[in-house]
Amino acid sequence: MKQPPGDGERQRAGGRGSGFVLGLQCIHCQATFPLEPMHEGCPACATDRFRASLSPTYDYRLLAEHVARQGITSDAGIGVWRYRSLLPTATDGAGEISLGEGHTPLVPVPELAGELGLTRLWVKNEAQNPTASFKDRNAAITVAKALEFGATTIIASTSANHGLAVAAYCARADVDCVILTYPGIPDNVRSLMHACGARVIVTEREARLDRLREAVADNGWYPATNMTRLPTNNAYGHEGYKTISYEMFEQLGGEVPDIVAVPTGFGEGIFGIWKGFRELVELKLANRVPRMLACEPLGGPLTLAVDHGDRHLVDVGPRSTIARGIAVTVNTYMGVVAVTRSNGGVASASDPEIVHAQHDLAACGLLAEPASAVGLAGLRTVARRDRLDGAQTAVVIATSSALKSTPTETAAA
Amino acid sequence: MKQPPGDGERQRAGGRGSGFVLGLQCIHCQATFPLEPMHEGCPACATDRFRASLSPTYDYRLLAEHVARQGITSDAGIGVWRYRSLLPTATDGAGEISLGEGHTPLVPVPELAGELGLTRLWVKNEAQNPTASFKDRNAAITVAKALEFGATTIIASTSANHGLAVAAYCARADVDCVILTYPGIPDNVRSLMHACGARVIVTEREARLDRLREAVADNGWYPATNMTRLPTNNAYGHEGYKTISYEMFEQLGGEVPDIVAVPTGFGEGIFGIWKGFRELVELKLANRVPRMLACEPLGGPLTLAVDHGDRHLVDVGPRSTIARGIAVTVNTYMGVVAVTRSNGGVASASDPEIVHAQHDLAACGLLAEPASAVGLAGLRTVARRDRLDGAQTAVVIATSSALKSTPTETAAA
Repeated sequence: MKQPPGDGERQRAGGRGSGFVLGLQCIHCQATFPLEPMHEGCPACATDRFRASLSPTYDYRLLAEHVARQGITSDAGIGVWRYRSLLPTATDGAGEISLGEGHTPLVPVPELAGELGLTRLWVKNEAQNPTASFKDRNAAITVAKALEFGATTIIASTSANHGLAVAAYCARADVDCVILTYPGIPDNVRSLMHACGARVIVTEREARLDRLREAVADNGWYPATNMTRLPTNNAYGHEGYKTISYEMFEQLGGEVPDIVAVPTGFGEGIFGIWKGFRELVELKLANRVPRMLACEPLGGPLTLAVDHGDRHLVDVGPRSTIARGIAVTVNTYMGVVAVTRSNGGVASASDPEIVHAQHDLAACGLLAEPASAVGLAGLRTVARRDRLDGAQTAVVIATSSALKSTPTETAAA
Repeated sequence: MKQPPGDGERQRAGGRGSGFVLGLQCIHCQATFPLEPMHEGCPACATDRFRASLSPTYDYRLLAEHVARQGITSDAGIGVWRYRSLLPTATDGAGEISLGEGHTPLVPVPELAGELGLTRLWVKNEAQNPTASFKDRNAAITVAKALEFGATTIIASTSANHGLAVAAYCARADVDCVILTYPGIPDNVRSLMHACGARVIVTEREARLDRLREAVADNGWYPATNMTRLPTNNAYGHEGYKTISYEMFEQLGGEVPDIVAVPTGFGEGIFGIWKGFRELVELKLANRVPRMLACEPLGGPLTLAVDHGDRHLVDVGPRSTIARGIAVTVNTYMGVVAVTRSNGGVASASDPEIVHAQHDLAACGLLAEPASAVGLAGLRTVARRDRLDGAQTAVVIATSSALKSTPTETAAA
């Protein structure tokens, strides 16, 4: 499958890239597949009760030689494409879609570190992305890859952040976009999706997955978001989140924090960040990965799944939480992998704890929506139960801006 | 006045800094003053009909030697403080207040360049700041300087963006904050000011200046925003905008664009950006300054002021425009200076033209509130009238995010 690095000509139909990427691999059974649009996770190990995601693999031996010569960044790229040699597209720059995502600050918050018993604590403020959430990193890769595959319409099912990111990157790439969303989406987010030229369809949560699957099957549209009932996510989008790890590693001068706390729903974020650190170890740049702390609203499925053992997906059914964007009913195997392989953990936070964390971030000048504050809330849960296990340093990922939440949600803080 | 560079100990009371900064200077009559909290512009040339702002001056000879050795950035600083040797505070890092502002992307928009008759066009997307507007750069400097002066409460009068920035940086610095604002402020912005711990007082526009002046006189509070009827602005805050120029210069690999188009109200932004480029010339890094294009809503005062000659301030009275944040009644001499000394110009845009520009930016995936889109609208006005005068390259400053506008404003696009 592998093409020689920097081989030039983009293969739009096959979309195999021409960089260091080799193919797709199941994150559970390790089965490998070519770089194709595979929308339903690994077909080899799927059962009625289990599904695993696919994730790009790379020629890390060649990559190590490359980064030893040139470093992990490319001066020519902007946004996530600064790290183009570690991404699953061609390395020639053609077809890269960017709005200048990433390069977000790592803000030290000593005022919160002490209370948590940490020596140092930082907030990686992903609200400072083009559409004000970390989903922009995902959308940059997803839309670029969709274009490689020849997509002419991209569809996403989303509570808000993911959809706005996909709408903006589709606008940037001048490709048609359809967003399936829910009735309570904040007005400013919905109107901005429209302004980006997306067609916005409001449906009840239960109907959205069926609508998405129908659109992909009937119209050949390309799905930017998960399309399986046991969620597996897009096979490429999470690669965008690896750049969060690369940036943190650079911003900390080559240091790896003991813990990285990530608000977690379908687990693309925490998996991508874990994978980014794992690659830095693979490339002999870092000497370890941080313990990944998946933070979910109270009653979430990942807590139970990890307690039950490695292979479990758990359906906890719908529940009410202020952290709407990550209120999933079923966990993913992506989340399980990030937590278990990093010797990390799962922490949960109640609505009052989330509001408390949102308030504490605002008191530092950081504007986080409820889902975005779940990282700090979860880290606090762990610290309060004396389960930091000697951790001295931590990074909390603040995934999205409070400017997107409804006034009621914000006023609560 | 000058202290040796890197002299350590912060002088909180005098606030004279310890870097390359020499003092304050009138931007009209050149009278010089010590680095003190001077809130009403230049006392030397003020009349009933004219007031000029004060602006920090530096020892550019020593600075040139410094940047020849070390470059204009400091690895130790974050946000605007990466350029700390060019800022009016101590250079030892103590007292620097940052939320990771700046480092915003310069997004190429070839799809718009052609229509305007330009070879290349970029959008500097200032929405990607901590509170989603370029005011964060201003607030970082203003709050740091206020603390140097021993301020315990900071007050701002604002339509939205400036106030949210000041509230967030006061939270970061743990100093009390009072925001005077207007009845129609978007709900999400007001609630976030509250969340940052600011006291928010809603007053009619006409009463705000009096309230601000009383609070400063009676309580000794430090004003972060303009407090004179003929506006002069804060003497230090505009230094934050210089970093926009430094970043653009670095992002363009040392190239200077022919035109920089800036949405303009009280002119702090365009003055700061012009001053940044002028300093790069002074330091022998750049060979010219760009032509500064001040872009204001139709019927604005700067158009008339510049037509009338160098020294004019014009009061056009209140008018209705969708670009609320820059709907000033009186122009500033800061705006006049930036335009005339750069051989630039003033362009105005009607509400439909602003909405058109907002729509065009969204069609590129860039989410700008109406005031933020005035730069593109103004540049288009100039291009349509064939007044580009041979310009090939331009940068449009998009000052703030559409996520802050009310749904109605956004839906119009």
